Amino acid sequence: MAEESVKLLGYWGSPFALRVKWALKLEGIQYHYVEEDLPNKSPMLLQYNPVYKKIPVLVHDDKPLAESLVILEYIDEVWKQNPLLPIDPYERAKARFWAKFADDKCVPPVMAAFSKKGEEQERAAREARENLKTLESGLEGKRFFGGETIGFVDIAAGWIGCWARMTGEIIGINLIDAETMPLLDAWFQDFLEVPFIKEFMPPQDKLLEHCKESHKKF
Amino acid sequence: MAEESVKLLGYWGSPFALRVKWALKLEGIQYHYVEEDLPNKSPMLLQYNPVYKKIPVLVHDDKPLAESLVILEYIDEVWKQNPLLPIDPYERAKARFWAKFADDKCVPPVMAAFSKKGEEQERAAREARENLKTLESGLEGKRFFGGETIGFVDIAAGWIGCWARMTGEIIGINLIDAETMPLLDAWFQDFLEVPFIKEFMPPQDKLLEHCKESHKKF
Repeated sequence: MAEESVKLLGYWGSPFALRVKWALKLEGIQYHYVEEDLPNKSPMLLQYNPVYKKIPVLVHDDKPLAESLVILEYIDEVWKQNPLLPIDPYERAKARFWAKFADDKCVPPVMAAFSKKGEEQERAAREARENLKTLESGLEGKRFFGGETIGFVDIAAGWIGCWARMTGEIIGINLIDAETMPLLDAWFQDFLEVPFIKEFMPPQDKLLEHCKESHKKF
Repeated sequence: MAEESVKLLGYWGSPFALRVKWALKLEGIQYHYVEEDLPNKSPMLLQYNPVYKKIPVLVHDDKPLAESLVILEYIDEVWKQNPLLPIDPYERAKARFWAKFADDKCVPPVMAAFSKKGEEQERAAREARENLKTLESGLEGKRFFGGETIGFVDIAAGWIGCWARMTGEIIGINLIDAETMPLLDAWFQDFLEVPFIKEFMPPQDKLLEHCKESHKKF
């Protein structure tokens, strides 16, 4: 049974676990979900991801996989119902490029804007806005990064809009807006309206409350 | 002609360009090589990699690709003579995991050990050693990361040993040694002895001189 052979170790508020939930849903894979208590990580998590000791971990036929983008590639190679990556090698490379760009250049400054203060925060916010604007260029002429349907980059980066908005609300600096990044702004909104995407998004009130609590610690 | 359709923009001392040179050689691809003058980047480089403005850039049939790991995946998908990634999806995921680990967790502290001073340098050197030790665990029971032959992780991370040693020599802190990391140390040496790998390595004297000059700027 699929439920027995696929297991996901995650955390309700983690956007990286969310990527995997979305990808598994897109492929129609049933799985056993294990919610981790992050301050008290389970022995199973430590055993399955000894290098990072982090969620998400996907376990398939008792073989563990870590790192969410690596997991997405695995899911795309093992289950073929709804391919995440395009078929054409050049388009695949572009998708990998933008997913990596989002992780390397958009996520860190959004997180730094959240955790830093004063000038450092302002610098991070500026960098986040600049890099999100660059990310937008990958979307030109398309509804989703995947074209007319959701693909690899959408699954990888689609959560950033919600988190960037929440961060902006908490720190009082706008990280994303419709005027400067109309395509990206519309994409973030369209993406979150797709039923199966919406279904797995953490409850917004709970997430905002959680982020506010985390923010107090910085 | 292959020479006309494939072009690589690189820099003689760049390990990231080196990855691409190795992969193209492994696949037996002829290409036109363009050496970039990094302080005066060519209009072609800026046009082909507007996001990062960095080498390496691979241009295939006039279509540019940036980001060396993305380029390696592309090469592996387009030319099939000597597959870089294994066939099995789980083994492919493990290869991607270790290549990403090397880039995310080994390269930055080696570079920081090179560019920082005092306590920050010591901390970076410690982190580099710890993470190189972790990288070693991916090599257990194997000659190369790819098994008996060179694969994706070897091409991606095989240069680190040489650069880490050179950094160690310049800063006077050993980043890698045979006693603590016997498997990794042997692998770095074996790898650099493979003829086509050796052939593309920058001349060691010139590279050391170049690194020493760069180091003076920090």
